[in-house]
Amino acid sequence: MQVGVIGASGYSGEALVRLLVGHPDVQLRLVTSRRWVGQSLKAMMPVLHGKLSDLEVQASNPQELVQHDEIDCFFLALPHGVSSTFARLLVKTGKRVIDLSADFRLNAAERYQEYYGSVHPDKELLGKAVYVLPELCPEGWQSAPLIACPGCYPTAILLALIPLLREGLVKPQGIVCNALSGVSGAGKKEEEALLFCERAENATAYGIPKHRHLSEIEERLSQAAGEPVRVQFNPHLVPMRRGILATITVRRHNATLAALYDCWKTYYQKAPFVSLLPSGTFPASASLVGTNFIDLAAVEDNRTDSFVITVALDNLIKGAAGQAIQIMNLWSGFPETTGLC
Amino acid sequence: MQVGVIGASGYSGEALVRLLVGHPDVQLRLVTSRRWVGQSLKAMMPVLHGKLSDLEVQASNPQELVQHDEIDCFFLALPHGVSSTFARLLVKTGKRVIDLSADFRLNAAERYQEYYGSVHPDKELLGKAVYVLPELCPEGWQSAPLIACPGCYPTAILLALIPLLREGLVKPQGIVCNALSGVSGAGKKEEEALLFCERAENATAYGIPKHRHLSEIEERLSQAAGEPVRVQFNPHLVPMRRGILATITVRRHNATLAALYDCWKTYYQKAPFVSLLPSGTFPASASLVGTNFIDLAAVEDNRTDSFVITVALDNLIKGAAGQAIQIMNLWSGFPETTGLC
Amino acid sequence: MQVGVIGASGYSGEALVRLLVGHPDVQLRLVTSRRWVGQSLKAMMPVLHGKLSDLEVQASNPQELVQHDEIDCFFLALPHGVSSTFARLLVKTGKRVIDLSADFRLNAAERYQEYYGSVHPDKELLGKAVYVLPELCPEGWQSAPLIACPGCYPTAILLALIPLLREGLVKPQGIVCNALSGVSGAGKKEEEALLFCERAENATAYGIPKHRHLSEIEERLSQAAGEPVRVQFNPHLVPMRRGILATITVRRHNATLAALYDCWKTYYQKAPFVSLLPSGTFPASASLVGTNFIDLAAVEDNRTDSFVITVALDNLIKGAAGQAIQIMNLWSGFPETTGLC
Amino acid sequence: MQVGVIGASGYSGEALVRLLVGHPDVQLRLVTSRRWVGQSLKAMMPVLHGKLSDLEVQASNPQELVQHDEIDCFFLALPHGVSSTFARLLVKTGKRVIDLSADFRLNAAERYQEYYGSVHPDKELLGKAVYVLPELCPEGWQSAPLIACPGCYPTAILLALIPLLREGLVKPQGIVCNALSGVSGAGKKEEEALLFCERAENATAYGIPKHRHLSEIEERLSQAAGEPVRVQFNPHLVPMRRGILATITVRRHNATLAALYDCWKTYYQKAPFVSLLPSGTFPASASLVGTNFIDLAAVEDNRTDSFVITVALDNLIKGAAGQAIQIMNLWSGFPETTGLC
Repeated sequence: MQVGVIGASGYSGEALVRLLVGHPDVQLRLVTSRRWVGQSLKAMMPVLHGKLSDLEVQASNPQELVQHDEIDCFFLALPHGVSSTFARLLVKTGKRVIDLSADFRLNAAERYQEYYGSVHPDKELLGKAVYVLPELCPEGWQSAPLIACPGCYPTAILLALIPLLREGLVKPQGIVCNALSGVSGAGKKEEEALLFCERAENATAYGIPKHRHLSEIEERLSQAAGEPVRVQFNPHLVPMRRGILATITVRRHNATLAALYDCWKTYYQKAPFVSLLPSGTFPASASLVGTNFIDLAAVEDNRTDSFVITVALDNLIKGAAGQAIQIMNLWSGFPETTGLC
Repeated sequence: MQVGVIGASGYSGEALVRLLVGHPDVQLRLVTSRRWVGQSLKAMMPVLHGKLSDLEVQASNPQELVQHDEIDCFFLALPHGVSSTFARLLVKTGKRVIDLSADFRLNAAERYQEYYGSVHPDKELLGKAVYVLPELCPEGWQSAPLIACPGCYPTAILLALIPLLREGLVKPQGIVCNALSGVSGAGKKEEEALLFCERAENATAYGIPKHRHLSEIEERLSQAAGEPVRVQFNPHLVPMRRGILATITVRRHNATLAALYDCWKTYYQKAPFVSLLPSGTFPASASLVGTNFIDLAAVEDNRTDSFVITVALDNLIKGAAGQAIQIMNLWSGFPETTGLC
Repeated sequence: MQVGVIGASGYSGEALVRLLVGHPDVQLRLVTSRRWVGQSLKAMMPVLHGKLSDLEVQASNPQELVQHDEIDCFFLALPHGVSSTFARLLVKTGKRVIDLSADFRLNAAERYQEYYGSVHPDKELLGKAVYVLPELCPEGWQSAPLIACPGCYPTAILLALIPLLREGLVKPQGIVCNALSGVSGAGKKEEEALLFCERAENATAYGIPKHRHLSEIEERLSQAAGEPVRVQFNPHLVPMRRGILATITVRRHNATLAALYDCWKTYYQKAPFVSLLPSGTFPASASLVGTNFIDLAAVEDNRTDSFVITVALDNLIKGAAGQAIQIMNLWSGFPETTGLC
Repeated sequence: MQVGVIGASGYSGEALVRLLVGHPDVQLRLVTSRRWVGQSLKAMMPVLHGKLSDLEVQASNPQELVQHDEIDCFFLALPHGVSSTFARLLVKTGKRVIDLSADFRLNAAERYQEYYGSVHPDKELLGKAVYVLPELCPEGWQSAPLIACPGCYPTAILLALIPLLREGLVKPQGIVCNALSGVSGAGKKEEEALLFCERAENATAYGIPKHRHLSEIEERLSQAAGEPVRVQFNPHLVPMRRGILATITVRRHNATLAALYDCWKTYYQKAPFVSLLPSGTFPASASLVGTNFIDLAAVEDNRTDSFVITVALDNLIKGAAGQAIQIMNLWSGFPETTGLC
């Protein structure tokens, strides 16, 4: 199987390239980057130490990309708004497209407009795309022409809450999700706010109360609950490169802590990357960095009749590149964990 | 005025020494530390670069300390349970005692036992001690024999919420406080979990649902609300040395965002260290490090009928040593900001 | 005394503003920044928490600046090449000018051209400017119209070596200076290489073998030795915000370690900011951060007939803003340490 | 092939376990740790996320270990002085032993005593052990009963210098090696000096002029040069978890920069983990973390007639666990890179 990574010089793109280079069943044949076009992959990513050193970085040009007949599957690691232009053309050629941007994550084009500030760029394709959280993917998703990968925060929060809301173990009202992200979550942007001297020894909240990922979180949780769910979503940047840690306060609905864990076990018994930690222990984001795992734990508080759930994952792996490859594996009939362990 | 710092080698003790060395109206005459006894202050704290280099570190021995007639005010920077032994003897000699430990922070001895796991060591003195958050201190506090300094997390959360609960702008139910602390908040302990390699690039929750500081937070918020308040308190360690960032989700009670800011302005118009940031901006913990300030901001979310409040301070200054000196200033009739700006 | 800071939004400029705001004998009346012109100082520097909150940031325009009759002393915290334009006009008005850029640090205009890649912008003023390392300043420096502040690396290396070379205790040949700098030493530039995710957990050498500061180091060391000195200067960026640590290997010239320490003691007995650490201990850069001190230590190696000297300072204080204020203090007849302790 | 890791809870031991778990041709059958004995490997290393979750951590007891007939190869990740006790017994049973400690790295027992402060614990076995830097290993090393793995600093410095000294391209006199290490290089010790708050934002030199690794460096360089070589070795700790960056100043001996690179190319043309960077670029330690690669680069300075060589590697991989597995691969006839790419 031959694959290409479009937009390979951002943090998610780089993570994709590193994982694909080590994947035994695929060949990485194409990487594109506006910034590095014409240079060698080796120059762009010294960390590869010469693997695929003959590959030359191509332009990120949709018209040219459709010429690449040899590619079976394209990964789009592009900004939202940009990604759809590529997706439209590639889908027409019948190629598989796995999109890591936000362009096809929402069901409702109006919600896209509300949260992303512009008209949705391709409502037709939006109707055909499928949002795939591999552990909870909908029936028949494999026949979609394009798969939308969930965002990093949503992956953490949805894997924790969807089973509990579906089974009615927690109340849909009053959910508070606080989340911490490593700085790579903000992307590789040359901005003062992302300089080492500005972020080291510094923690800040941002994007409250309507961070873009909230749209995706609420849409999926509402689906799971069968009624509209409103979430207080409080994201923060903390001084580490990678990792997400979400701490979710949710009111229980006549459910014990044991029932919560049983529910997770039932949903995730065959999920190779979901790891349940004993109640009273707490995921450490560093234990997830470099892996496609997600760690889940919960405690109950009888005083407040609530559960507090803690979740951790690597924003660039399970929250982006690893999950995209997990999707590719399932889509292509490879074992789910290939190239990810 | 002559002062002493008992337990000077922990992070709060060191911060006290650094601030007191630069305080124009006091003389630091005594520092104690079990570990450094007999050595020079210079050896214990190279960062002082020779200031007070003649001072020799004394033993932390209560019987010896009461001999120090020259000292007017003692700062206790000791572990809980240990502090009360010193406090009892020093108070008897008529000295002013400012205690940074948890021993005298709670009104109810039973709550101390519930949260600290042992019988309160001195109920009589507990009845006489006064808990002083300088911006919100009770009438007549100056006549107390011992002042209990608030903890670092409580300082952040109480300054944000007490005015709002007192004025009925927010509901006492459903409060969720997530908080991030720099690693110095865990103390200077030689534990594997606090090693550089374990904490760098790592974030974890801990102590949920009943961190010790919760007792202090709930006791004071209940007082302010005039009814029992239950808080979901979710503390975390993030990879920075200093700083606390708390993000508080609270339901509004027929109040506008403007009313919230007006309430804060009224309570804090004469508070030199409380700084209100415009709604939509968020405190950055690094802006507070090394200062006695606290930054407060809030946004409203009409979808959830809630406010999200963000607060930041330096856990070792406004959350410990700086606040203790602010108390000393007020207690001694010095301008409140002396030695703190 | 009224002062102005030209170029206040870089890291050195900010450090100047913070120190000047707390200096008891000066009034900061003017701050300029292209980026923040028209906004309040408060907006530009939230860390001030309202001090001088009425000050509005001015344009960095030399023609306008010369109108400011009220200013007695200007600090130029501008890039090299830019600084001289301001210096020329301000010097003509008879104002005192303290320049933190590299424009007037070298004696020889040709060396400037060799190392900075362009013709020296003002040879006439270069001839009048004086390079002032406060602990080793030349006779009569006070009558100069403009003082050039040493760079951060040169401050560390020159204070360590000038006395030893002057007194002939070490050989001028074969000196190797390795130096580590915090990332703020690279300036506040919106470059990919300075992003948090690129610099955290990362160490690199750069600028070898001819970093710009080498010109300044060799010029001053040659002066001290009375013969040309060639230095191998190996600078590195390490993942911390502030601090310089230089490790200097130098061959001894019939001198004992005691003689080396005696020489330093003689030169620096009245230097309030030079701190000598016992042989066998090593300066920790963190002990210097936020201070104007410089820590010096040395060991001898009989096997190689060499001394290894370690030096640390805060690149933004003793290596820039603090040293500039130290110069201002001496120039103005204030006690040397005013506003710096 | 069945392997065991003795002393698995230190940083090198953990790195060994992580790599061996993913090695396709070996089975990790035994891990020992005094601290975790009786607990599951899962509990000791949550990062494994359940791999080998049935393995129970055994005691580090030499008498018991010799009973493990099923093990073909033992990795000793123990402190120096302790390792030899295990090595002696295991070697007697005919097992392959790869020792990561310093016990068998030196040829001369007296040098061990000089640098490690105690009589060498097993001179007989010392005479039989072979020191193996895989890229430069001596003839017939495979028949040794025990292989000593080089230290982390020596690996960096020896791979850079041995070819140049052997070929006479550089002078054996006047070599200065400055080196930076991530904090994991100091081991997982519960010491105040290694706490997050002490090491973050901090850089220090240590162990100058006679760090223990110097003995190993000088012994091997002298061998290469055919004459005694004295090195000035200046190690430092910088605030990152992993990585070594060494900057070596060495005088050239009638050699051009091209000759230096040619020499390296000749020696390392078949070395899969040695990567040569173009002159003028500098290795970034972060590019090596998690890999078994070593990056080498050099510049020349005609002014000083010297080369400055920069080298980077991951102290826990190429500097410890990865190199040990590379040795095992070669020893067992597996492809050299198995399990390491």
